[in-house]
Amino acid sequence: MHRTKVRIVEDALDANNTIASANRADFDRAGVKVVNFMSAPGAGKTTLLERVVADLPGLRVGVLEGDVEGSMDADRLAGLHIPVTQLNTSAGFGGECHLDANMVRSAIPSLPLDEIDLLLVENVGNLVCPAEFRIGEDSRVMVTAVTEGEDKPLKYPLMFRACELVIVNKIDLLPHLDFDLEKLLYNIDAVHPDVETIMLSARTGQGIDAWRDWLLRIPARAPEEAIA
Amino acid sequence: MHRTKVRIVEDALDANNTIASANRADFDRAGVKVVNFMSAPGAGKTTLLERVVADLPGLRVGVLEGDVEGSMDADRLAGLHIPVTQLNTSAGFGGECHLDANMVRSAIPSLPLDEIDLLLVENVGNLVCPAEFRIGEDSRVMVTAVTEGEDKPLKYPLMFRACELVIVNKIDLLPHLDFDLEKLLYNIDAVHPDVETIMLSARTGQGIDAWRDWLLRIPARAPEEAIA
Repeated sequence: MHRTKVRIVEDALDANNTIASANRADFDRAGVKVVNFMSAPGAGKTTLLERVVADLPGLRVGVLEGDVEGSMDADRLAGLHIPVTQLNTSAGFGGECHLDANMVRSAIPSLPLDEIDLLLVENVGNLVCPAEFRIGEDSRVMVTAVTEGEDKPLKYPLMFRACELVIVNKIDLLPHLDFDLEKLLYNIDAVHPDVETIMLSARTGQGIDAWRDWLLRIPARAPEEAIA
Repeated sequence: MHRTKVRIVEDALDANNTIASANRADFDRAGVKVVNFMSAPGAGKTTLLERVVADLPGLRVGVLEGDVEGSMDADRLAGLHIPVTQLNTSAGFGGECHLDANMVRSAIPSLPLDEIDLLLVENVGNLVCPAEFRIGEDSRVMVTAVTEGEDKPLKYPLMFRACELVIVNKIDLLPHLDFDLEKLLYNIDAVHPDVETIMLSARTGQGIDAWRDWLLRIPARAPEEAIA
């Protein structure tokens, strides 16, 4: 029984990767780089987008907002005069807890690919499933807030592995927490050695420049076969 | 196509509810009350258990720890000399993002039901899927930390509806946040009118007594048919 279950999961992920490759081909044709932006609920993804999207010289930015319900984040970002597309996952009871390649595919006709150079995809707030589903992105970024504790890399290792950048957010709160930043960095390194990290406070602005610079030089993406 | 998908989801949830009812019957026979304890990653569930499990007069407590990987939370709680059972969901790639009734059923033979009166089940940190799956519990508690922002009830409404108690944690950090507590309470009330709430700081101890009292008088549970 157990073996059967695993095979079904692998089949579903294989189908996802097929669609992710098709998405990537579409993005490539349009010359659009795509970043998949992930975190737990409330780690500060939307604020981190707000702080940089209007100030990326030479890059025309669009945002695809993934949420179970509502369009609050999209409404916040729309005020910045960039194209924002909302993708809701609430078709099923309770909604899907992640974006997958097929959901993103369904949004492609609504995306102004000819008018942007960079598409930032804000995934559903969740440290488990979003890491399992490629969407056709060039790069993956995850945000962990220091308020979440030092143990998160060890409890959700795939999320910390399945990214090219880890942003450690809310560091302005460190003086008010029983939190050991060195321990967090040690745990991140344990599950994803040498991954790039940025210490950041969206509130004070510390680290925002490094985040903006990272977006301006998104790492050369992995070869096509890395998706599958 | 859309209709077919929804039907499959409903079938899966129906099967889950059948197993949840069987779990509940087993817990009833043993005279054990069960609480399903849910939140986003890092909201403070384990600390909230640590603060009360050894100090509930007249109640012998056991804990069932749900995690994708590892046993860090179980190790923390084992130091309190209560029975702790670990349930890992990492069989599939990346792991399951929630506990369901069948996972809990698989753990029942390992639970010392004859030696406890109250079983606290710490679910996987996630604001979406745990709310969709009953596990045979008497009551559901969710924790939201003020560091997660005021908008979470609107973005994850099912989680805030599928509980009998909302604990608002980390209120010691309010002076250091741009956070409007009244707005959070307004949003909670909008999705779940009149749900009981406790303002709490696991760090300072504020609200711990109310949390302990709540566990000592777990609300009379809904009738059997409410599960299905």
